[in-house]
Amino acid sequence: MDKVVLLTGATGFIGRHAIAPLLARGYQVHALTSRPVIGQPVLPGVTWQQADLLIPGQVEPLLAALAPTHLLHFAWYVETGKFWSAPANLEWVEASLRLVRAFAACGGQRLVMAGTCAEYDWGGPACCSPETPLRPATLYGAAKLALWLPVERFAASCGLSAAWGRIFSPFGPDEHPNRLVAATIRSLLRGEEARCSHGGQVRDFLYSLDLADAFVALLDSPVMGALDVAAGHGTTIAELVMEIAHEIGRPDLVRLGALAAPANDPPQLVGDITRLAREVCWQPVHTRAAALAQTIDWWRNHP
Amino acid sequence: MDKVVLLTGATGFIGRHAIAPLLARGYQVHALTSRPVIGQPVLPGVTWQQADLLIPGQVEPLLAALAPTHLLHFAWYVETGKFWSAPANLEWVEASLRLVRAFAACGGQRLVMAGTCAEYDWGGPACCSPETPLRPATLYGAAKLALWLPVERFAASCGLSAAWGRIFSPFGPDEHPNRLVAATIRSLLRGEEARCSHGGQVRDFLYSLDLADAFVALLDSPVMGALDVAAGHGTTIAELVMEIAHEIGRPDLVRLGALAAPANDPPQLVGDITRLAREVCWQPVHTRAAALAQTIDWWRNHP
Repeated sequence: MDKVVLLTGATGFIGRHAIAPLLARGYQVHALTSRPVIGQPVLPGVTWQQADLLIPGQVEPLLAALAPTHLLHFAWYVETGKFWSAPANLEWVEASLRLVRAFAACGGQRLVMAGTCAEYDWGGPACCSPETPLRPATLYGAAKLALWLPVERFAASCGLSAAWGRIFSPFGPDEHPNRLVAATIRSLLRGEEARCSHGGQVRDFLYSLDLADAFVALLDSPVMGALDVAAGHGTTIAELVMEIAHEIGRPDLVRLGALAAPANDPPQLVGDITRLAREVCWQPVHTRAAALAQTIDWWRNHP
Repeated sequence: MDKVVLLTGATGFIGRHAIAPLLARGYQVHALTSRPVIGQPVLPGVTWQQADLLIPGQVEPLLAALAPTHLLHFAWYVETGKFWSAPANLEWVEASLRLVRAFAACGGQRLVMAGTCAEYDWGGPACCSPETPLRPATLYGAAKLALWLPVERFAASCGLSAAWGRIFSPFGPDEHPNRLVAATIRSLLRGEEARCSHGGQVRDFLYSLDLADAFVALLDSPVMGALDVAAGHGTTIAELVMEIAHEIGRPDLVRLGALAAPANDPPQLVGDITRLAREVCWQPVHTRAAALAQTIDWWRNHP
């Protein structure tokens, strides 16, 4: 059977890296973006499609025409600094539910969507495990959970195979320059101080290329339900910043404790990769050293 | 300040009974229905409005024109026998999120929406209490929770006062004839056997007129967040059926155990009315005897 996938958020920070592994696994890729398709990379097996998921009626005729067997949905409102509490989160719940209904209506068979570790209760001692309650503290986390809850039941009721991958702390090329890894690299490459918070927060960092590869592996598997898509081990922010600084050769410029930590910053956010490792049988392609080196190189070429 | 309310589901089983208490509390009522407004009851202070919430763009101009201060949202897909797993639940999440966004955009101040006891985990020993986990087993329960989760955070982020009332087991006039109370009354009034399951299930029954009155009291209060809107005490189905049978004078026709109980029928679903009683200061207007007598009378007049 031909595997035809509609990939949303195909120009995004994660989604763009899903194209190569989808092609490698034999998918015919329809890469969806709300941006102009002229200028997007031309690749055999990839067709760029333009539609704004936020406008009802735009994607439905496309789905009807393409009848994709698979849907990999990354598109969301992700404006750094704003996405946690932006009203646009409600629109993305609506848009995503419309998309799922339209995908089912045109005979779609397998659906994977991007969730977030912000769906979990961050107040507990050991976030996150399968026992961690789902109790989002933010609008973003609540909106993502609000998408998955009914989609899981809807999919079960109509024979659609559905999975939901919760993302933790991705990093990689072309990240928003204000985010931790990008800001640290840019400061150090310029020979400026890298000012950070105390750095004791434990996070689950995963390279954006590996994250996209993991989602494609999940899409290509029969695994259903919600699971963490993560590295599965914790690193303190201080450790990661020092790894970057040593790679660039400027550990002298790191200023841990120079900034206040964000309010309500959880001490630990580490994913549980039991299902990802055992059921999807996925493991990262890149070592962290290689991932950081590639990310630093990208910023060297995009100063 | 003038209190102007948009009431959705205004011809529905619960919503229709909200009109009188809204008028009694001084609201200017805009009663919304997707049905023709000709033929709806003409009352001073009530303006009927027709719009289909499922069609994007229909209610938005109405909200912009009316600029209601209050929104009381009952409308949903409630087709008996189908609503638990109907795909329409997804559309109602979308429609309700659009409605909330449009209400906030036109300066709305206070929002109350109808939730359900089906949001709770029915598998636990003592459903329901504030400690009962939210773990809906059905698409209907998941969709309702999927509406409240982001709306609660959205409201907090934009200064909108919002509450969510979880409904348990309502009964009253003009109920779907296949539902327990209606079916029992109709059988007994016809002199036919009232065939029931074992009847040991404990439920929290509340008269539809009282339920609507409680929602209006909640709307008219500053109470925020989610709370059960219920009687707060349990009655077995067998007890309720026998109360009906004695009122009609045909206890001889009751056949408990004649039908199999539905699969996964929870043994107990009783609301916790601590917040409703202490914060909203609401209590039922009707005794159950009066409520059942009125409901039976309605069916006598609508055989």
